Amino acid sequence: MIRVVLVEPEGEYNVGFVARLCRNFDVEQLYIVNPRCDLRSALNFAAHGKEALLKAQVVDTLSQALEGVDLKMATSSDADNPGDILRLSIPPWTAAEVGRGKRTALIFGRESVGLTREEISMADFLLHIPASKEYPVLNLSHAVSILLYEFRREANRDQRNVNAESLSLLDKYVRLLYEQVKGRSVDERAYIVTKRVIFRGVRTEAEARTLMRLMRKLYLKLEGVWR
Amino acid sequence: MIRVVLVEPEGEYNVGFVARLCRNFDVEQLYIVNPRCDLRSALNFAAHGKEALLKAQVVDTLSQALEGVDLKMATSSDADNPGDILRLSIPPWTAAEVGRGKRTALIFGRESVGLTREEISMADFLLHIPASKEYPVLNLSHAVSILLYEFRREANRDQRNVNAESLSLLDKYVRLLYEQVKGRSVDERAYIVTKRVIFRGVRTEAEARTLMRLMRKLYLKLEGVWR
Repeated sequence: MIRVVLVEPEGEYNVGFVARLCRNFDVEQLYIVNPRCDLRSALNFAAHGKEALLKAQVVDTLSQALEGVDLKMATSSDADNPGDILRLSIPPWTAAEVGRGKRTALIFGRESVGLTREEISMADFLLHIPASKEYPVLNLSHAVSILLYEFRREANRDQRNVNAESLSLLDKYVRLLYEQVKGRSVDERAYIVTKRVIFRGVRTEAEARTLMRLMRKLYLKLEGVWR
Repeated sequence: MIRVVLVEPEGEYNVGFVARLCRNFDVEQLYIVNPRCDLRSALNFAAHGKEALLKAQVVDTLSQALEGVDLKMATSSDADNPGDILRLSIPPWTAAEVGRGKRTALIFGRESVGLTREEISMADFLLHIPASKEYPVLNLSHAVSILLYEFRREANRDQRNVNAESLSLLDKYVRLLYEQVKGRSVDERAYIVTKRVIFRGVRTEAEARTLMRLMRKLYLKLEGVWR
């Protein structure tokens, strides 16, 4: 479970966009600490995420916004200054892995100055999105979008869906085709490589069956059974 | 190398944000096809990405915006409708893997209606960001941020190494083989699926060349040139 926490956001459009993103990524909890902009105007940027904004928790302090979570992750575009222990950071993919299955608060600071050191020190981790060395400062709502995407990706890992029988039929057809042309320049290696490329690349049962049909027809034509 | 292509963008703030994102992720090429908003006002949202917008290429047609790239990837929030071959999609992480080391155009449609079917058919892949089933429609600049993040992440990884010429030869042989057996049960879909499976699965130049040799021999045998 993700909770998005915005600390003193200043821009209506960012707050609206973040509400939309909560809807886009099925985030149920949005907390806004002491907003510095007009939340009514923010609705204009929320598209179908208006409801997420209307039911957002508006609180006075960051501590209130962090009640009841297992993990607190602060975000910053300013990270990994040598010698500054508070700013040692983890990248989004590590954060998503660490956060998997936990009630995790993602804490985003002000557009102008980010989070204070005191606010960062309330978190368990500092999260930093790797970006251009010259200009790593992402706009607030874009940082939110990237993290929600990464956390969702982690939660849904392993979606490949091809059954073992189909893989074994694909293997059979690769072998049959290979045997039609094996020789000096096309040896056993060609069979193994082709099989591996296909096993890696195929993602769904529908794809597996389409490939099989194509290979079967090629094989039958080569055998002269079908023209 | 990434080229961001915006097709008929309608919102100043999105264009400005995208320019900022190009700067954030070191993207050198921004193409804008027939903008439907005021690019001067867009500068207000670009922060330190103003220069990326000032040097953006503004062109009349999508074809012009796609000149000189190796790979074209269309994006859509509307993907994977059963039976609609044009809308079979790949997720960002696969796209980033396939695009590694290539001059890749990421094509984004209008805020209101996205890309037309004709525009999508000009691309090699359709890219879809997995999101809420109820409301998967991301705002334009947020879709851009997620893809630039994912492509950057992939570029800093270290694995796949297949050059563009090899991919195009693989494509050619898949098409030649497909044409040998096309018919009722093996239609255009089979060609597209096979190409995608192979593009996804192939990892090295050596693998690509091995596959090519096998496909070439199959083709020559089918043509009766070689036994």
